[in-house]
Amino acid sequence: MHSDVPFAVWSRERQRRIEDALVHALSSDAMPAPVQLGEAMRYAVLGGGKRVRPLLAYAAGEAAAADPAAIDSCAAAVELIHAYSLVHDDLPCMDDDALRRGKPSCHVAFGEATALLAGDALQARAFALIAQGGMQDRGSACALLADAAGACGMAGGQAIDIEASGRTLDVSDSAAMHRMKTGALIRASVQLGARCGEPLSLAETEALDAFAEAIGLAFQIVDDLLDVEGDAGMIGKTAGKDAANAKPTFVSLLGLAGARSRAETLRSDAQSALAPFAGRARRLSELADWIVAREF
Amino acid sequence: MHSDVPFAVWSRERQRRIEDALVHALSSDAMPAPVQLGEAMRYAVLGGGKRVRPLLAYAAGEAAAADPAAIDSCAAAVELIHAYSLVHDDLPCMDDDALRRGKPSCHVAFGEATALLAGDALQARAFALIAQGGMQDRGSACALLADAAGACGMAGGQAIDIEASGRTLDVSDSAAMHRMKTGALIRASVQLGARCGEPLSLAETEALDAFAEAIGLAFQIVDDLLDVEGDAGMIGKTAGKDAANAKPTFVSLLGLAGARSRAETLRSDAQSALAPFAGRARRLSELADWIVAREF
Repeated sequence: MHSDVPFAVWSRERQRRIEDALVHALSSDAMPAPVQLGEAMRYAVLGGGKRVRPLLAYAAGEAAAADPAAIDSCAAAVELIHAYSLVHDDLPCMDDDALRRGKPSCHVAFGEATALLAGDALQARAFALIAQGGMQDRGSACALLADAAGACGMAGGQAIDIEASGRTLDVSDSAAMHRMKTGALIRASVQLGARCGEPLSLAETEALDAFAEAIGLAFQIVDDLLDVEGDAGMIGKTAGKDAANAKPTFVSLLGLAGARSRAETLRSDAQSALAPFAGRARRLSELADWIVAREF
Repeated sequence: MHSDVPFAVWSRERQRRIEDALVHALSSDAMPAPVQLGEAMRYAVLGGGKRVRPLLAYAAGEAAAADPAAIDSCAAAVELIHAYSLVHDDLPCMDDDALRRGKPSCHVAFGEATALLAGDALQARAFALIAQGGMQDRGSACALLADAAGACGMAGGQAIDIEASGRTLDVSDSAAMHRMKTGALIRASVQLGARCGEPLSLAETEALDAFAEAIGLAFQIVDDLLDVEGDAGMIGKTAGKDAANAKPTFVSLLGLAGARSRAETLRSDAQSALAPFAGRARRLSELADWIVAREF
């Protein structure tokens, strides 16, 4: 696909690609799981979601001259980690959310025990895929994903989020929490995608981290904006839920206009950070626009 | 340590080793997690358990001439997978067990949400450790552990176990379920340990699988025997629980004497399988004795 293809065409093609990769990764041929468990895993992953993290992996990989086929496994792996976290997040002992992507949550459809195990098995499947990836050093790719998903990353951020429920974090603490809860996996998506291509310079690797840091926080702020502005049909989950749970959000901390303005600044920071790529990171730059302007 | 050291001395030394490795792997230096989450993870892992899977990893590694220090990471990784599965198993939506290793279960001590996340983060931490292991090909070691833990292994076996609750599996279906639920991780413990040493012949690798298959099933049968014979103080969990849940067990299927006899046959099968090692797998053979004779 030529690099002058419009973003909308590129992103649709990559979304089709990742859908195929996910369907295959969770097929009964590739993963001969017990029937109910396999269905719950596919239900949690397929047929929904904008695949933001896989798109970031493809975009970063292509900035490193990787062929999309070499990126499929790691793009699928980061999406499985994301999907498992949503399944566990929705459980009654966590956010107790009955609706996800406009459908009954996994535990509503399959029961709590199966949903718990489906989440557990999706995490394991992600590491199986990373181990099949096109990276030079699959061991260190595995460690990178593990750190992003674990106690110092996503799971740790969720733990802080739970502890903070009912009290107010300031902007700095909120940002630190989200840096772990959503930022760590977004950073891993970018870094793992990039590792599927040509080796990058230190400046380029650091540029990707700066990009991911800014766009990860922007993503969360837009999430909070959509929670306030959206309706359940549009965002596919229960709107206004954060306020109902008395969870601190960037909108409650900065106001609507302040949160919108902060997201715009972060978009611009993210795009500026890509300077060392001298134009080769076009898709990442376009993804920054797309993430901040999204209405989903 | 000389190979003529008695088993009791060898196993105590390896248990001390793995305890140190686990303490380090979950220390706030090695894993700067949020305070509560880190405490829940350490609570779930440290200060209890006979470390059967790590001992199998050390014994298999030493059969392949590995130095114990090269085996620590993978021994810790398999124990973290085991520990996470116990935390999730004990949750109210699964077995709803308030007691584990003679202490309140993780969710009783820390709340359900933190226990769920602690289990999730322990799984991730296991893959971080495997990625630091002394194996030649850390990528394929990661895949091996992922398959053992996931939908075709441990999590899949648990899903079958849940579906079977309240109805009777025959001996063959029960064995198939346990081959996934406990057998897969036992096999992975043996294979991963062995990969920390010198490359093995195909006959040796297959011998380890045959050993693990037999000892994994024997382990489960002894578990069922202890559930019937033991009291809560001895086995550190609620005795008689399987019968109370109407779960099929090898004792309900084979009777007490039949189950004991089957375990003895499997012990002997496991030890015979080690013939290709011509005596170099002494610790594995001794572990087979220990697993079948255990009273914990």
